[in-house]
Amino acid sequence: MTTFWNTRTGDLKPYVPGEQPREEDCIKLNTNENPYPPSPTVIEAIGQAACATLRLYPDPHCTILREAIAEHYRVKIEQVFAGNGSDEILSYIFAAFFGREPVLVPDITYTFYAALAQLWDVQLKAIPLAPDFSLELADYKKPCGGIIFPNPNAPTGRSCALEALRSVADYQRTTVLVIDEAYGPFGSESAVPLCAEYPQMLTVHTLSKAYALAGLRVGFAIGSEQLIAGLCRVRDSFNSYTLDRLALAAASAALKDQAYYRTVIDRIIKTRERIAPLLRAQGWTVIPSQSNFLFISHPQRRGIEWQRFLREHKILVRHFNMPRISEFLRVTIGTDEQMDRFLDVISP
Amino acid sequence: MTTFWNTRTGDLKPYVPGEQPREEDCIKLNTNENPYPPSPTVIEAIGQAACATLRLYPDPHCTILREAIAEHYRVKIEQVFAGNGSDEILSYIFAAFFGREPVLVPDITYTFYAALAQLWDVQLKAIPLAPDFSLELADYKKPCGGIIFPNPNAPTGRSCALEALRSVADYQRTTVLVIDEAYGPFGSESAVPLCAEYPQMLTVHTLSKAYALAGLRVGFAIGSEQLIAGLCRVRDSFNSYTLDRLALAAASAALKDQAYYRTVIDRIIKTRERIAPLLRAQGWTVIPSQSNFLFISHPQRRGIEWQRFLREHKILVRHFNMPRISEFLRVTIGTDEQMDRFLDVISP
Repeated sequence: MTTFWNTRTGDLKPYVPGEQPREEDCIKLNTNENPYPPSPTVIEAIGQAACATLRLYPDPHCTILREAIAEHYRVKIEQVFAGNGSDEILSYIFAAFFGREPVLVPDITYTFYAALAQLWDVQLKAIPLAPDFSLELADYKKPCGGIIFPNPNAPTGRSCALEALRSVADYQRTTVLVIDEAYGPFGSESAVPLCAEYPQMLTVHTLSKAYALAGLRVGFAIGSEQLIAGLCRVRDSFNSYTLDRLALAAASAALKDQAYYRTVIDRIIKTRERIAPLLRAQGWTVIPSQSNFLFISHPQRRGIEWQRFLREHKILVRHFNMPRISEFLRVTIGTDEQMDRFLDVISP
Repeated sequence: MTTFWNTRTGDLKPYVPGEQPREEDCIKLNTNENPYPPSPTVIEAIGQAACATLRLYPDPHCTILREAIAEHYRVKIEQVFAGNGSDEILSYIFAAFFGREPVLVPDITYTFYAALAQLWDVQLKAIPLAPDFSLELADYKKPCGGIIFPNPNAPTGRSCALEALRSVADYQRTTVLVIDEAYGPFGSESAVPLCAEYPQMLTVHTLSKAYALAGLRVGFAIGSEQLIAGLCRVRDSFNSYTLDRLALAAASAALKDQAYYRTVIDRIIKTRERIAPLLRAQGWTVIPSQSNFLFISHPQRRGIEWQRFLREHKILVRHFNMPRISEFLRVTIGTDEQMDRFLDVISP
């Protein structure tokens, strides 16, 4: 705390992202990146945009990208918001919709929500996950100032069914219900079709995981026109042009090459389904995952010790020193070769 | 206002950026873009970064870019903050440092500050510019919760001298003093050297104007380590990775090609100094400009009518329907050919 910071700044508890090592010889299974490259059409689109008109401001309405998203999801362009990564969109959501009453979140969830709550002066009320880490959606049927959780949840990887979401939405008619689908493409049902029925429901998406574009920073949200208009109001009071010309061109190209990404996603799911039983056979607890990571523990070592042990073998995984999950590791699904090396290292 | 927005969202008065036309045959003198392309090394750097590892998150600390900035300005890397355009950095400044007491701003200045003040619940106190639109810095020596203005000021284009800034900094020892140098490279003295002496002083910079990269969205700030740490705390509570891999590579390349940009900037200044007297000779009031635009009026037509008239001739300029400046146009300095066409159109 310095004399120049205001009270807000002193009170913040900033998010700490997973390590981005400078060494290139690590196997990086710690930040849920895609082990495969983005579509070649994305690289082409960047080359073209770079040679065009970088001297001019980008389209502040992100039209070409929102058109591509609207077409893929069969929604209106007015139902689509685009941002500089889904984290930025989450921040706008906290700023635009939350603050009156406590917002319900799972007790174990994406830790960035807590940082956002502090920044935007929002109270969170933690709803415990079941002992098997599944979301008990019946617990979200109570008066509140909003609801937000990832589906599949992070860092557990479990998803909940569309009918359970529908039942929460039927109860929560006047509070905003945010489904963070960052990991959705790896096996859960998307709630986008529900947005047509429920104007209070907003889904959040990222190109960082399924689209292999974590380095590009693009996310989007789909929901009712009134929710999207609220996000635009906050964005236009924060930073008028959040997506640059390269990101707009590249992300649009990615959305249009669904065939490529279907292959990439299927390969990741296949690797996950191959690895999970091999871990269980070695005595690991493996939470059922519909995401691109596994959440696992083994009594032989403490969670933090497993992390250190793997680090010594140049494999990075994520460990959260938090109640209920301190013995677990979150391990991103890498290539088959990377996962075989991971299995070699942890085998007795 | 809808039932789903909170009070903050309903009360916002979002910023409206200048028009970005889809038609390509306009002469665009309305958003202070650079008429010349960025350095060829920037395009090369983008091509390389696109083919490298877009699947991985970028460095959240923006190290390569901050190193390039630190080297150019001869400051420590800990004194440099990088953001997704200088507008994003301005937003972090309002969030991190302002809010206790009213913040002093010129009555005529960058209109985005008012939007930021609303978003972050900051009161602004307007200090009138002199009748000739020069900044009366003596008026900023009074108790306040911070000071922010552009130097050169926008949309007037006038700059103030370093010694005047120093005298304000000598008085304001405990409040943050922000000098927005978006237009600095076109003729005003940079306050960066003062930051070493005054820990409360922060300078803000953009690559959108002088570096011809409005389409890339990169800005930076230079100041004391404690101010930069405050910005990092807010950023890490808002969005962990604000600059993508392409922007980091491209902006670093731009900072390193000072020779190219010196030529570009000199050419723009030369055009400005050629055009201003030609306008005055035709009866235009031309505010002395140290920026890449001219702020002008002519009694023959109202400001809004000049704007419409030029629009009919496919020339876009900016008009602000605000007290004191409603008869003025802000005209970006384009190429010599574009400015000659502009002169042709407005000549009697």
